[in-house]
Amino acid sequence: MANLGTLYTVSAPSGAGKTSLVSALVKSNPEVCVSVSHTTRPMRPGEIDGVNYHFVDHATFEAMLERGEFLEHARVFSNLYGTSQQWVVDTLKQGIDVILEIDWQGAEQVRKLMPDTVSLFILPPSLACLRQRLTGRGQDDTAVIEARMSEAISEISHYVEADYLIINDDFTVALAQFQALITSQHIRRARQIERHSQLLTELLA
Amino acid sequence: MANLGTLYTVSAPSGAGKTSLVSALVKSNPEVCVSVSHTTRPMRPGEIDGVNYHFVDHATFEAMLERGEFLEHARVFSNLYGTSQQWVVDTLKQGIDVILEIDWQGAEQVRKLMPDTVSLFILPPSLACLRQRLTGRGQDDTAVIEARMSEAISEISHYVEADYLIINDDFTVALAQFQALITSQHIRRARQIERHSQLLTELLA
Repeated sequence: MANLGTLYTVSAPSGAGKTSLVSALVKSNPEVCVSVSHTTRPMRPGEIDGVNYHFVDHATFEAMLERGEFLEHARVFSNLYGTSQQWVVDTLKQGIDVILEIDWQGAEQVRKLMPDTVSLFILPPSLACLRQRLTGRGQDDTAVIEARMSEAISEISHYVEADYLIINDDFTVALAQFQALITSQHIRRARQIERHSQLLTELLA
Repeated sequence: MANLGTLYTVSAPSGAGKTSLVSALVKSNPEVCVSVSHTTRPMRPGEIDGVNYHFVDHATFEAMLERGEFLEHARVFSNLYGTSQQWVVDTLKQGIDVILEIDWQGAEQVRKLMPDTVSLFILPPSLACLRQRLTGRGQDDTAVIEARMSEAISEISHYVEADYLIINDDFTVALAQFQALITSQHIRRARQIERHSQLLTELLA
């Protein structure tokens, strides 16, 4: 059986509003869920295993990596983060759409293993707005802000690899566009043929 | 300059509700319009030239055909029908989406000349529903109804050539899916790059 759900990668520079958009999307569309990553980083107060992350030790992570169980993975400082391919595939088979919030490198790894992935990139509406969002409460010094800006702009340069682009100017408009993307994927021929095979057989009997 | 609008072909068997859907879509989305065909058939009472059709005589139609001015054309009985490519291209360049309501043969001709065309196929929710819609007011004899059914089913067999399929069971749901398709095309990378080239230049300067 082919996958009934659609896999999305959502990438964006810090300050583009990706997390708020994804969280609003999932709230409005219960048939969509966000993948929970595996990580070796220690659990923080208030975090729940299996909700925020699947918390595993280094040996477990390395063994999973060895067995090729990650759709994508990355090292951030001394911690490892990865997405279980088995979980993603099982969820898609249930007809649930899955969102991976990852950077362009992760999105690239995912596309190689699952070419049907739909990639979305969120952009800020202007450079001034990006700078404002990255300045925070005005307590950071210029060098820190400049480093954030430079990292954000480096991520932005990868918008060209995405299938769809959303400019997050008006949050309501951006969310409606994201919802429209989800719905439009539901009516793609291949997915409709899977879902309505009985109807199609009946109509052409 | 590339086209800013998207060209859609919408096909369906009689009785699937295509015309009602397209008309509701255009009403709700003023940035979308339906192409007005050229035809050699005589104007009927109440019809307006340039609104229902561009009414032309045979010699004019044949001359346009000779000059390759039609994106697609068809003969129905002794009348000719066609879509002016110039008008379609000019409209798309203004950023307006264009819908062509045509059968699968027309859609095939259009795709050959304009491969970026997005094709949509509307299906009835069941065979019984299709038969009911084609039975009309119960005044036609069985042979006429069977002929309509057989024609409808022959058109339906071409759903496999379309990019997107909508099952017109609940009209509101079908319309929302059509609207989502239109919006999702607006955020495709190529189209967003055209529309927001200034922003992208600014962000990556």
